[in-house]
Amino acid sequence: MALAFDPASLTYDTAGLIPAIAQDEASGEVLMMAWMNAASVAETLETGRVTYWSRSRQELWRKGESSGHVQGLVEMRVDCDRDCLLLLVRQTGPACHTNRRSCFYTSVGAQGEHEIMEPMV
Amino acid sequence: MALAFDPASLTYDTAGLIPAIAQDEASGEVLMMAWMNAASVAETLETGRVTYWSRSRQELWRKGESSGHVQGLVEMRVDCDRDCLLLLVRQTGPACHTNRRSCFYTSVGAQGEHEIMEPMV
Repeated sequence: MALAFDPASLTYDTAGLIPAIAQDEASGEVLMMAWMNAASVAETLETGRVTYWSRSRQELWRKGESSGHVQGLVEMRVDCDRDCLLLLVRQTGPACHTNRRSCFYTSVGAQGEHEIMEPMV
Repeated sequence: MALAFDPASLTYDTAGLIPAIAQDEASGEVLMMAWMNAASVAETLETGRVTYWSRSRQELWRKGESSGHVQGLVEMRVDCDRDCLLLLVRQTGPACHTNRRSCFYTSVGAQGEHEIMEPMV
């Protein structure tokens, strides 16, 4: 399917990447932040399944491809500077590789840090 | 006040920065994403007012200092990789410089993009 939206119209960093925040579309919980390149933006819009760019593996990262913990795209939004994406998603299972629903399970304060979320069973 | 939490324990990029997502602590709305360095993390924790690092001005950016649209810090969280922050905030007025509540006011789809949010009056 041809996209009427041009992923090249976004602003990428010098590595060709744009940060993408995944938010649970029902609960509003922020699940994770990862990176996309133009190809992963296009694939995500075309397939309705969230695909990131893995900086460590330097390849397309089809979220949940091995774990089954896929993210269905409900809506993509871009910010005023066109250099950050917000993905409203339907998350299957945990978003985090630690098996927690969200990657943001550690609270940080002036007195130190503590975990606020258990792994899913 | 001495911090028991060491901002140097976070993972910064080659420019010494870490992305920080600001989320409205009451509504759950994602308001914006900006960047922090270790000094702005420390100042934010010490003062309870969110301070970013302005990449364009290359200086500490005390959110709302000129506009009055301050962000009070309710809670800071760090993700599993320690390379992204989530800030739960009490936002005064609009978070976006366009006077919209959130910077993510543009919806993107395969068929193009459209604005979903009006500036605040």
